[in-house]
Amino acid sequence: MDKLRRKPERGRTDRADLYAILDDAHVGVLATVVGDEPWTVPLLYGRVNDRLVLHGSTGAGALRHVAKGAKASFCVHRLDGVVVADNLFNSSANYRSAVVRGTLNPLSRESAYEALKIMSDGIIPGRSGEVIPASDKELAATLTMALDIEDGQWLAKVRTGGPGESTEDPSAWTGVVPAYTVFGEPEPSEFVPAGTGTPASVRALAERGATMGA
Amino acid sequence: MDKLRRKPERGRTDRADLYAILDDAHVGVLATVVGDEPWTVPLLYGRVNDRLVLHGSTGAGALRHVAKGAKASFCVHRLDGVVVADNLFNSSANYRSAVVRGTLNPLSRESAYEALKIMSDGIIPGRSGEVIPASDKELAATLTMALDIEDGQWLAKVRTGGPGESTEDPSAWTGVVPAYTVFGEPEPSEFVPAGTGTPASVRALAERGATMGA
Repeated sequence: MDKLRRKPERGRTDRADLYAILDDAHVGVLATVVGDEPWTVPLLYGRVNDRLVLHGSTGAGALRHVAKGAKASFCVHRLDGVVVADNLFNSSANYRSAVVRGTLNPLSRESAYEALKIMSDGIIPGRSGEVIPASDKELAATLTMALDIEDGQWLAKVRTGGPGESTEDPSAWTGVVPAYTVFGEPEPSEFVPAGTGTPASVRALAERGATMGA
Repeated sequence: MDKLRRKPERGRTDRADLYAILDDAHVGVLATVVGDEPWTVPLLYGRVNDRLVLHGSTGAGALRHVAKGAKASFCVHRLDGVVVADNLFNSSANYRSAVVRGTLNPLSRESAYEALKIMSDGIIPGRSGEVIPASDKELAATLTMALDIEDGQWLAKVRTGGPGESTEDPSAWTGVVPAYTVFGEPEPSEFVPAGTGTPASVRALAERGATMGA
């Protein structure tokens, strides 16, 4: 079997590939340096054109640190499948991942609300058109940060396909078990008045079926 | 509505809770500091008692850096559901997350193979008993690192339940859309001889049904 198959090129250099990965995940891990130590936190995020917007509470100390211009690395991953070889060393995972490096900048209150809408619609398409607006007080308690996606400051990787051909046990079963995300039936809060319909956006999320990646 | 419901305590202090989170995810983000910049990479991992084992290739420069005793932070998250409030500010996510801080240490070749078995069985239960052993050459090309889970060096957080009671639009639908991971039908490689049965461990993974978290 040729080398190309065994070790396919995983790096992606086209922004369209990067954006497809970023738009297909909703949670990423923000890393920064506090003192001389690495610090990480998982955050909901969204992509607005060529920037990522990240959401946090103004109460989170390290987020404030990051918002003040500290260097950051934001990492996103999706597990698309388990790659089963005839031994454990050659077993692997199909995945898509992205890393964006840069400096975070806090957004103004107005920009932050626009970003919140886009982030929310990324998770529940159309939701921002159904809700009542957030109050000024609520917006003031939110820290929305932007991470510009600059040339040379991002990485995108994709692994697809099966394991290499087995050379030791050609009779062995090898292959891939794909992984999906499914959203379940919406569960109303106990204080929703009886007979209240589920919003269209929420119904659509629950009915969209399985999507690649876990 | 009382404060406890609106802002439930998310931190967990029991190691059993931390271990349950760590055992339910297979990919995490490793962060370290290279120069004065944060650096991140997603990695497959497993838990072996009170340590995490992380797998990489000896060819990865930054992994070698980490293996030499650099400080690290490892972050794991599962998205359990989308929390739908009557405005975007109060909308949220149900999740489980864990962060483990410490210094990584490379494992010996023998320990590394034991760790690889445990990591593999964490993803495909029972798989390590079905495969042919990895060769010495393969093991030599693998860098397995251990991150001890030390007291005071980890965080675990869990958010469950719905949004707070709506105060602005009591007639609005609010609630949760749960998120699950599902593994699909195993796809054999094209060089698997016709009639080869799917291994029991692989079949079990594909048949285990939906599990909470995406």
